[in-house]
Amino acid sequence: MKNIAHKFLVLSGKGGVGKSTIAVNLAVWLSMQGKNVGLLDIDIHGPSIPKLLNLNNKVLQAENNKIKPILYSNTLKIISIGFLLQDESNAVIWRGPMKHNVIKQFVTEVDWGNLDYLVVDCPPGTGDEPLSVVQLLGKADGAVIVTTPQQLSVVDVKKCITFCRQLNLPVLGVIENMSGFVCPHCNRRIDIFSEGGGKQMAKDFNVPFLGGIPIDTVMVSACDSGQPFIYSNSQNPAAEAMRSAFKQLLQPHKKNQIDKEVTVK
Amino acid sequence: MKNIAHKFLVLSGKGGVGKSTIAVNLAVWLSMQGKNVGLLDIDIHGPSIPKLLNLNNKVLQAENNKIKPILYSNTLKIISIGFLLQDESNAVIWRGPMKHNVIKQFVTEVDWGNLDYLVVDCPPGTGDEPLSVVQLLGKADGAVIVTTPQQLSVVDVKKCITFCRQLNLPVLGVIENMSGFVCPHCNRRIDIFSEGGGKQMAKDFNVPFLGGIPIDTVMVSACDSGQPFIYSNSQNPAAEAMRSAFKQLLQPHKKNQIDKEVTVK
Repeated sequence: MKNIAHKFLVLSGKGGVGKSTIAVNLAVWLSMQGKNVGLLDIDIHGPSIPKLLNLNNKVLQAENNKIKPILYSNTLKIISIGFLLQDESNAVIWRGPMKHNVIKQFVTEVDWGNLDYLVVDCPPGTGDEPLSVVQLLGKADGAVIVTTPQQLSVVDVKKCITFCRQLNLPVLGVIENMSGFVCPHCNRRIDIFSEGGGKQMAKDFNVPFLGGIPIDTVMVSACDSGQPFIYSNSQNPAAEAMRSAFKQLLQPHKKNQIDKEVTVK
Repeated sequence: MKNIAHKFLVLSGKGGVGKSTIAVNLAVWLSMQGKNVGLLDIDIHGPSIPKLLNLNNKVLQAENNKIKPILYSNTLKIISIGFLLQDESNAVIWRGPMKHNVIKQFVTEVDWGNLDYLVVDCPPGTGDEPLSVVQLLGKADGAVIVTTPQQLSVVDVKKCITFCRQLNLPVLGVIENMSGFVCPHCNRRIDIFSEGGGKQMAKDFNVPFLGGIPIDTVMVSACDSGQPFIYSNSQNPAAEAMRSAFKQLLQPHKKNQIDKEVTVK
């Protein structure tokens, strides 16, 4: 871990908000900037990264007692439990201690080499997986929190900010995913999953708001076919919104310290 | 548990597909049929049931060494870890063994009384929470599996069917949630999250397909304001689709046995 300059965790209290999509696109975008990047998928029960990068048939191998990450490109290395499953229908039916052990292996026994950035895609919730990775990574730059605008999501994601504060993990900012939808037939905007919930939450918790990313059926198709959207559809407004959010992560973080004045409840 | 006639688990390998929405509406619909119903929310990190039923300020109490469930109505009793949190931002930062203990309490130390149906809302994945509840409940009627049409979701939900088969839990059927959207401006249909993935999966795994439920902004608002949609918007097409799916759960299940001919991988 000492050869990794920056570590970002992509977190959300809620499933299905697009954490893995954000994590993949962040990692691909960083590698497009000429950086050496690692992408670590610690979602043990629902690893999405192999599917999102069309790496379904790849298998992890070891060399000199170190696990070799799968190379997506010369500058992007990937680790996921998905690379250990024979078939994508296989379920990893494990309790917490076993999950901790595999995450420990993925953090300490992988030949990551020198990395500018490690992006960690966490499963939903505030249980074993994010706890383990925060404890095992050592010092990290902080967490990128993903939510949808819907209150039902925001409630869970607030717990995630509480989690970060209790573990002294800085919150780098909140991304509001699935933020509005433009009808492809009539071009009018519809706020399917309500609006503004993520922005309001960032304000309430005094953490940076990194922006909203609209729902786009092209992004859904790109995910399903294993194309990293920010690369394959770089002119799309949703890709522009992602870039705008990601650029803020590379700026000196004035606001990314835990605000001591906000009481942790 | 012996005074509970039927037990349904609502499961999904993937978060954010609408498990809790389906579980709440199933429980409310059963109670609308005059049944005595319990709704057990075992999502420890992201309990949605209190929000979905506008029961945020309720607190669990004990009587005669038994936990008293929160009464939503005379025929609907609710248990959720949300009723033990002082504030909805509070995070339950627990590893697996602690989660197992609280689920055990919720199953064995709650004064459920005589119930016709117990509906269990599980968190995503195939880890501690669903494992614990399957082991603690004893014999259950089976699992209702929720997915969206998107391949990214279907891949995770397949793991869920594998989980059921490995634990000898019958699969009662698959519900495809967020199945199409009708633009409120131009009334044309858009398959935002792709189409047919849940139906195809049900066919592939030889389990019943219970139907698709469209995305509806009215349902999103109902969720956020704590109104059970199937009651408050009973004429809505999405409510009709839910009823159609739920009715099949009450029919004699010709197909709900584990199909021994399908190889568990």
